Amino acid sequence: VQRDDLLARLTAALSPTQVRAGDAVAEEELGDESLAAPAPARPLAVVRPRTTAEVATVARLATSAGVALVPRGSGTGLSGAARAQAGSILVNFAEMNAVLSVSASDHVAVVQPGVTLRQLNEHLIGSGLHYPVHPGELSGSLGGNVNTNAGGMRAVRHGVTRHHVLGLELVLADGTVLRTGAPVVKSSSGYDLTQLVIGSEGTLALVTEVTLRLSPVMPERATVLVPFATLEGLAAVVPEVVAAGLEPSMLEYLDLLTMSAVTQAAGIELGVPVEVAAATGAYLVVLLETRTAEQLERDLADLAQLVGARGALDLYVLSATVGPRLIEARERAFWVAKAAGADEIVDVVVPRSRVPEYLAEAADIAARHGGFVSGCGHVGDGNVHLSVFAPEAGARHALLHDLFAAGLARGGQISGEHGIGADKRELYRHLSDPALLALQARVKAAFDPRGLLNPHLGVGA
Amino acid sequence: VQRDDLLARLTAALSPTQVRAGDAVAEEELGDESLAAPAPARPLAVVRPRTTAEVATVARLATSAGVALVPRGSGTGLSGAARAQAGSILVNFAEMNAVLSVSASDHVAVVQPGVTLRQLNEHLIGSGLHYPVHPGELSGSLGGNVNTNAGGMRAVRHGVTRHHVLGLELVLADGTVLRTGAPVVKSSSGYDLTQLVIGSEGTLALVTEVTLRLSPVMPERATVLVPFATLEGLAAVVPEVVAAGLEPSMLEYLDLLTMSAVTQAAGIELGVPVEVAAATGAYLVVLLETRTAEQLERDLADLAQLVGARGALDLYVLSATVGPRLIEARERAFWVAKAAGADEIVDVVVPRSRVPEYLAEAADIAARHGGFVSGCGHVGDGNVHLSVFAPEAGARHALLHDLFAAGLARGGQISGEHGIGADKRELYRHLSDPALLALQARVKAAFDPRGLLNPHLGVGA
Repeated sequence: VQRDDLLARLTAALSPTQVRAGDAVAEEELGDESLAAPAPARPLAVVRPRTTAEVATVARLATSAGVALVPRGSGTGLSGAARAQAGSILVNFAEMNAVLSVSASDHVAVVQPGVTLRQLNEHLIGSGLHYPVHPGELSGSLGGNVNTNAGGMRAVRHGVTRHHVLGLELVLADGTVLRTGAPVVKSSSGYDLTQLVIGSEGTLALVTEVTLRLSPVMPERATVLVPFATLEGLAAVVPEVVAAGLEPSMLEYLDLLTMSAVTQAAGIELGVPVEVAAATGAYLVVLLETRTAEQLERDLADLAQLVGARGALDLYVLSATVGPRLIEARERAFWVAKAAGADEIVDVVVPRSRVPEYLAEAADIAARHGGFVSGCGHVGDGNVHLSVFAPEAGARHALLHDLFAAGLARGGQISGEHGIGADKRELYRHLSDPALLALQARVKAAFDPRGLLNPHLGVGA
Repeated sequence: VQRDDLLARLTAALSPTQVRAGDAVAEEELGDESLAAPAPARPLAVVRPRTTAEVATVARLATSAGVALVPRGSGTGLSGAARAQAGSILVNFAEMNAVLSVSASDHVAVVQPGVTLRQLNEHLIGSGLHYPVHPGELSGSLGGNVNTNAGGMRAVRHGVTRHHVLGLELVLADGTVLRTGAPVVKSSSGYDLTQLVIGSEGTLALVTEVTLRLSPVMPERATVLVPFATLEGLAAVVPEVVAAGLEPSMLEYLDLLTMSAVTQAAGIELGVPVEVAAATGAYLVVLLETRTAEQLERDLADLAQLVGARGALDLYVLSATVGPRLIEARERAFWVAKAAGADEIVDVVVPRSRVPEYLAEAADIAARHGGFVSGCGHVGDGNVHLSVFAPEAGARHALLHDLFAAGLARGGQISGEHGIGADKRELYRHLSDPALLALQARVKAAFDPRGLLNPHLGVGA
């Protein structure tokens, strides 16, 4: 297939409404939420397949024309992975958005990649089950969640996307359709290609179906706010809360600036007395979810005793209205940071015991480069989200380099859940072991020998 | 390097006591516990490296001589993966058996591959932490657990090996040393090669270090025995126990023959009244583990009500001595089956709702081929362990073919935790999608282009 023929062939194989080019392409389906990646370019076409067979046809035709493919879910990604590229085909999965099945006895759901987190959890209302992975943005698609290995606030108890995906249907760049995994929680029957594709940012295969493990909803819950004088004091109590077997569903910290900004944006009054607020250096937010009300009472009492003995300034069990609103406000932290003019948002992950020293060094690094960082994060996981204020590109690049290098030096990783994408391409490649990059490139070639799936990204390149 | 030089070079690079050949090789370090794989052959040599650098040297020398490598932990595998092969080098990790570090605040342990499950859990006594994956055989090594993605009885709550391994140090066939992952529970920073190597049965890389996630020990526990008239009735209650949020640590079934055999072998008297035993068709064993005694009482009461309403013949909370002994006896089921003359043990996994129909069909399949099956298994996971009695090789092969095909037809997998190994090589390849096998072979080549790591196995070939 020649490039020139490609559009005509795609239109013939799908339908005219599913293949758009030129002015028919809407600007809003070309981008994502990255603050720093190169702006999206006009692609050769945007296709909206409705079936796996159509995805396979698109892949086959694109490959025979040597044209790159960029898969896209809801465009809520933060790293520029799903941005349209010049001369490529953007595969928009918005019309593959059916919940195909839910098994109440196996606790398994099978969904198409365009299904959103909100849609899935609304579908599950009344079943006693939920999909417990909770990245802040509920309009995110499951296909996108798989490709970034999305995490979020519930990871401290429930893990991240990879702990809940049991199987995938995949289309390779050459149009081959494969199934990996099965609706079972354990297998030792060949390489786990499901796990390999999770987090691969669309560079290995196009995901056309996802088999998910669901969890029972715990009916009792309480959101607890615990102010500490210092972040060091806060971080020291975190492993003790986990080690006590309290199994918190969320374990978040917010620095003063972030707490002030997100509560103000959401119009929440937490009711912390002025004298406590004045002494506070960081806030811990704990969500407890239990099977019974008695157990919740007991867990709250034990949590209060534990944090009280370790320097908490106080403990507030938020009301059933304020608690969820605070969590929702925390989810919106990205938007608040964006509105405040943050130049980049990073999500370095370090061993949780090293969060305080990492944050102290991050502040030093920012100051050294004439910038500023502020944040919040999943302190139970060591995953810190920092808004970076450093408008000048050269200084920002140097600042980010040092932030990532400091995380790696502490045994961490550059991104806990946002992905490398296009944003961090150069720094990821600069800071990674060349032998590891070479192996990843060989794995990429095993799936996609012509290098046509998301070749603009840092992973697999 | 010529083959003839290889022994001399290995001995020079390591030490004479670490490189054995000919009569110096002990028969007991050549095999594993597979009942059906081809017998181990005399290898070219057995090496016992003590450091990662020595492993890298062994790999480099073997590769330059074109000689295959077979990694070996404790030899407790059930699929023939670790059996010595003629003309190959057996890499015995017994001397790389140090627990390198335990972080009480991060809940992370770093171990060498020769560390056994027993050794690790003894090391953790008093820390309040444990490594919760519990395949029956505690002499198994962590390196072996990684290579088979070992599961076991606690998987229903805690998942399997892959849910607890955060990172690996690997030696590729050419001697390249790499680190994957990090001591953090979430990452979206490149392909998850940790997860790819887990369950790869030594065909991709040699594992020289494992970073593990630990869990808090729950101090209160009770083992509950619940007889049901039929396995169908037992299986129907399983999803309800999970959906109720009771979070059982084990959820096992035993058929009558298996329960009788394992309790008799262990000398346990369960105290089930004769009239109940006479009406029983299958036993459910539930382990509950909680943070507080009150919670355990409440969970036991709710469990009793739930199973009582669903046809349980009775419910026995076993004593603190009998409970652990029954679990230990269940762990020994493999040895009891072996002593009883089982010709093969399989561990097909199916969606848990399909366990009763699968077991009914398995009985039919066995009868059709003039054989017999009996078993027990992880009913919470759909992972059934069947002892196969069928002494004639041709009939056994046909019987196994039909058992595996029936599992696959129900959305399952050939092996939940034992692996494909050498045992199931032919049937695995016969029953798998050729496109999936071809992709796996390309992934294998990305790691091991000359095909020198465990080339006798079914996976990656």
